[in-house]
Amino acid sequence: MSSSVRICLVGAGRAAKVHANSLVHHIPGGELSAIVDSSREALNATAELYGLEKRYLSLEDALVANDFDAVVITTPTFTHADLAVRAAKAGKHIFLEKPMALSLEECDAIIAAAHDNGVLLQLGFMRRFDPEFTAAAERIEAGDIGQPMMIKSLTHGPGLPPPWARDLTTSNGMLAEVNSHDWDTVRWLMGSDYERIYVEVANFKGDAHGVKTENFYDNALTSIRFKNGGLGSISGVCPCNYGYDARVEIVGEKGILQIGELKGQALVICTDRDQGLITPIYRTWPQRFEWGYIREMKHFVECVQAGIQPKVGGIDGRWAVAGVLAGTRSFLEARPVYLNEIMKDERN
Amino acid sequence: MSSSVRICLVGAGRAAKVHANSLVHHIPGGELSAIVDSSREALNATAELYGLEKRYLSLEDALVANDFDAVVITTPTFTHADLAVRAAKAGKHIFLEKPMALSLEECDAIIAAAHDNGVLLQLGFMRRFDPEFTAAAERIEAGDIGQPMMIKSLTHGPGLPPPWARDLTTSNGMLAEVNSHDWDTVRWLMGSDYERIYVEVANFKGDAHGVKTENFYDNALTSIRFKNGGLGSISGVCPCNYGYDARVEIVGEKGILQIGELKGQALVICTDRDQGLITPIYRTWPQRFEWGYIREMKHFVECVQAGIQPKVGGIDGRWAVAGVLAGTRSFLEARPVYLNEIMKDERN
Amino acid sequence: MSSSVRICLVGAGRAAKVHANSLVHHIPGGELSAIVDSSREALNATAELYGLEKRYLSLEDALVANDFDAVVITTPTFTHADLAVRAAKAGKHIFLEKPMALSLEECDAIIAAAHDNGVLLQLGFMRRFDPEFTAAAERIEAGDIGQPMMIKSLTHGPGLPPPWARDLTTSNGMLAEVNSHDWDTVRWLMGSDYERIYVEVANFKGDAHGVKTENFYDNALTSIRFKNGGLGSISGVCPCNYGYDARVEIVGEKGILQIGELKGQALVICTDRDQGLITPIYRTWPQRFEWGYIREMKHFVECVQAGIQPKVGGIDGRWAVAGVLAGTRSFLEARPVYLNEIMKDERN
Amino acid sequence: MSSSVRICLVGAGRAAKVHANSLVHHIPGGELSAIVDSSREALNATAELYGLEKRYLSLEDALVANDFDAVVITTPTFTHADLAVRAAKAGKHIFLEKPMALSLEECDAIIAAAHDNGVLLQLGFMRRFDPEFTAAAERIEAGDIGQPMMIKSLTHGPGLPPPWARDLTTSNGMLAEVNSHDWDTVRWLMGSDYERIYVEVANFKGDAHGVKTENFYDNALTSIRFKNGGLGSISGVCPCNYGYDARVEIVGEKGILQIGELKGQALVICTDRDQGLITPIYRTWPQRFEWGYIREMKHFVECVQAGIQPKVGGIDGRWAVAGVLAGTRSFLEARPVYLNEIMKDERN
Repeated sequence: MSSSVRICLVGAGRAAKVHANSLVHHIPGGELSAIVDSSREALNATAELYGLEKRYLSLEDALVANDFDAVVITTPTFTHADLAVRAAKAGKHIFLEKPMALSLEECDAIIAAAHDNGVLLQLGFMRRFDPEFTAAAERIEAGDIGQPMMIKSLTHGPGLPPPWARDLTTSNGMLAEVNSHDWDTVRWLMGSDYERIYVEVANFKGDAHGVKTENFYDNALTSIRFKNGGLGSISGVCPCNYGYDARVEIVGEKGILQIGELKGQALVICTDRDQGLITPIYRTWPQRFEWGYIREMKHFVECVQAGIQPKVGGIDGRWAVAGVLAGTRSFLEARPVYLNEIMKDERN
Repeated sequence: MSSSVRICLVGAGRAAKVHANSLVHHIPGGELSAIVDSSREALNATAELYGLEKRYLSLEDALVANDFDAVVITTPTFTHADLAVRAAKAGKHIFLEKPMALSLEECDAIIAAAHDNGVLLQLGFMRRFDPEFTAAAERIEAGDIGQPMMIKSLTHGPGLPPPWARDLTTSNGMLAEVNSHDWDTVRWLMGSDYERIYVEVANFKGDAHGVKTENFYDNALTSIRFKNGGLGSISGVCPCNYGYDARVEIVGEKGILQIGELKGQALVICTDRDQGLITPIYRTWPQRFEWGYIREMKHFVECVQAGIQPKVGGIDGRWAVAGVLAGTRSFLEARPVYLNEIMKDERN
Repeated sequence: MSSSVRICLVGAGRAAKVHANSLVHHIPGGELSAIVDSSREALNATAELYGLEKRYLSLEDALVANDFDAVVITTPTFTHADLAVRAAKAGKHIFLEKPMALSLEECDAIIAAAHDNGVLLQLGFMRRFDPEFTAAAERIEAGDIGQPMMIKSLTHGPGLPPPWARDLTTSNGMLAEVNSHDWDTVRWLMGSDYERIYVEVANFKGDAHGVKTENFYDNALTSIRFKNGGLGSISGVCPCNYGYDARVEIVGEKGILQIGELKGQALVICTDRDQGLITPIYRTWPQRFEWGYIREMKHFVECVQAGIQPKVGGIDGRWAVAGVLAGTRSFLEARPVYLNEIMKDERN
Repeated sequence: MSSSVRICLVGAGRAAKVHANSLVHHIPGGELSAIVDSSREALNATAELYGLEKRYLSLEDALVANDFDAVVITTPTFTHADLAVRAAKAGKHIFLEKPMALSLEECDAIIAAAHDNGVLLQLGFMRRFDPEFTAAAERIEAGDIGQPMMIKSLTHGPGLPPPWARDLTTSNGMLAEVNSHDWDTVRWLMGSDYERIYVEVANFKGDAHGVKTENFYDNALTSIRFKNGGLGSISGVCPCNYGYDARVEIVGEKGILQIGELKGQALVICTDRDQGLITPIYRTWPQRFEWGYIREMKHFVECVQAGIQPKVGGIDGRWAVAGVLAGTRSFLEARPVYLNEIMKDERN
């Protein structure tokens, strides 16, 4: 059996715990060895959960100790480029949560640092590892529905994102923080890159939540024209109040394919015909993508052990960021925006 | 176009209104022409709804006036034999609600009277006309799931039946009043007659409802061995509280077939992830079998116009009664009961 | 009971037969009395089906005979204005199939003619009468999901539309011919009018079908901003190959509501675990909206009998046409188009 | 963290691999340390899969080496009592696959040996750990559907069981080998023990499969009366051909609860309206109960670490065997059989 991959968690929040749980409980080849967070409280709380003794207030400190092989970065987006480049330069393989970064320049810096230092880079697009999404991708690949013509993806999340994640100046807003996965999914399943983007947004709940941020929106509807002529739609609603909702629908030349459903469990109860049937809904993203999170981290560990590139990487993360940037410009300027206005180099 | 079939409703209760509604609103060839009920209040109330002027307190009175071609009998079971025989002798075609009668002797009398007087006899097994049940029957007939091996049918109704319908001495109880359709369905779809019957019953709510009737039960679970070796299961729960529920599941040598579902409408709502998704359930039997009721009456009218036997008749009604009688004896004596203990003449 | 409404079918094609079927089989108050079609063959074929003796090659001829109270117009869109105005001037009440007309001027002419001649005008938006759509509208009205924020509606049809219906110069294309109902639905359920429209289209199958028409498209994805700030999405695919598909999803401030589903019948079959479960899909629009078609015509007949305005009329038809015109300009000019560029008078 | 529990697999077949997979990939506290099988070929094949070096042809040999804490027994039923008693006497904790044993005497011997030697005993009823089954149990416990009145459970398996598993003389047949879990589930969720059992069986496919075993059956329908007056139904079909199917439905005084569904994945595809929608079905039991298998083994390891009794043990296994024995006698003698004919000591 391959030797264990020693991993340093960079970030100690909710996503960090999801990955720590995968590593500790489901991935024998991955060894949680250290944790970094600038908040001593969060650092200790998460470290205690997993019995982690090596705790650092910065990645720099952790790199001095230098007893791990890879990092799992789950900090806020605006810190990604700095942390990832630093890790790459220290020769650490990188699992980087989405969104990749705030700008294409930052994405490029990360990609270059990984390449130049010979480290592997995997983006946290766990939907690519969800059993239903992967089965769907295989069906499309096999030609079961013919060439995709129109693909719709949605992510609706229950609660209001934190301030930095809803402010365009610190995060690119909900198009990035809520819809990152959708940007990746539609490009992946359409098998083509974006050509132009049009976005409409709405702010229905900002006032009620006391959000005064400029350009805040809680509903976004994105239209995409792909280079192959296909059409795409992404919708984001956050907070949507009713649960966690992530579904995709694809119409191909030969038929339709639906991925996912609102229902969170095959359990139905009825006690009142005036109310009707009640079925559990997915409450949270860790619940909906339980297997996806386990499998993506398992893939990362196996890629590091085998020294091969993960199947979702920097270019995929960069395209999602490009879509977000084009989309944001679109709703700010109320016009469709071409990707070539945003990207000089449409590498794929 | 054929001339109208003039129909006299015998019985003015809920089932009468369902059939009147079909005749008035959906079946141009059927003309509602008279109504009979021994309760003047019910008689007038239902007659008003449909603008019926010919109102009689007894079938005898109606037969004196004699200006209709057929009767639709929806009175309590214990009145069926007398009314149906009387109508037959007057040359009136008969649509008879289920259960056919209380005993096989009564069934035989009805069948003989219809035969001897040359009138048509249709039993009110509307599930034979439901779009889903008929599509399923066609699939089975076409061999899609192979020879049926095991068939399960259930009917759960929301409310407590009236006193006469829950007392073995006046109605054969819930096996007859709630499960009549199931008896017919399993025999129809299995394509074989019952060989022996075993029934378990339970009384969970009688006390709470103040029901003191001897041998009252509100749950019944029937096991059937068919003559072709197949197995059957019927469950009845009434009152079940939660809605109206009628579903069937068949396992054949090649596969499975499910008919119906709890869900009453393709409408889903969710506003609270702690509660989950809410979907309407069927509230009542007229709602679940809306098309079945229209189509069975349309079939009756067309058969009368064409002078041909309806596709579900006296023999079908008689078998359902035989099953009920065997089943009742089974739970009273706590043993499986063979149909040949009940029927000397297993005509089919 | 009210006296019968005598109806003249104008048009003898598929939609005419759907309405004739409703009138003959399900609506006692409506009497099919005459039929008009410029094709003698279609005229006679449909007339035979319903035993209609009064057959005319033009509405003018029928109006000379003048023995009906109302018209049901199902001819191609480009004939609507002329026929509807002619019928109005003759004092005939009008049931007019969607799309209402080709231009706002034509819509205005129809509305004015109906008003000036005191005749009723109902548009053929049968989804407003579908049990699931109406139940959903009641839930929204009751505030169950709060203020709608985002609404998505789709119509995918199985086959290639006829040449006139896919040519912008004769029909406004698929946005009008396939998505007319969606335009009405999103406006109805959002409770607000369109402010601006953005449309992306694609042509995937034109070549394979030998369609050389300029600006032909078989996929359309529409984004709508409503005046109340809400967002809307409409998708159209035709031919989609896989069945008839019409579904709506609404996210409100308090939750989500889904209307309809792919499944056409509660019937499931499985005989091969490599293939999986098989469930019927809706094959056609008359099948999906069977009750909607019956109920909309029943509503029309009752409105004529009672002399009251139908609940969906000329203004609704006009808004749908306005959306189509804005949407068409949008994809031709690759920019969002404001309704006030199209409509001088945004009457509602 | 607790020290690892060293486990010896006893049996190297399919179930052994399922548990080995859980231990190796998902349960850090469980260490796979040895494997036993009397077939050298099976022994080596499975050992290779998990890199196991300690391989024994008998449990006796393994006990001599004596470097493990617990056994996971997955051998055929007729070997269970001997192996479990032997392991208990050697002080090894026991995870024992269902069915527990062939007779109540064997069950008693196992229970006594575990008790007398102070070892823990868990039965392999993984449905007690399935997320949907446990959520349902919590709902029932909370009173959401009131007192259960009727419970139905089914297990249909795709392929013909091996010869020993379909012969009454070596295994108690399908009631034991296919329906073991159902016996446990209905008793667990009803919260009451069986009072009497009635079973009907059928043999539809034996001839086609060349099975000549006496009393072979491939369909079984069990009726249960519980001591609390509740009713139960268990159906077994094997081979059912169409997939792996395990579902439960419970009607309580206040309402209904459904657990599970035919559908194996939230993926729908349609390319042909004549065929309809296609959705994956569960193919196998390891797929359906993926989480259940992981969680039951995790529970066993944690109980061993903590020294506490597992939540499903010998008494539960013994009741399932008692049900099977009563059921077998029932169909052989064509009468309901009371549990007190089978069990002198109805311990619970």
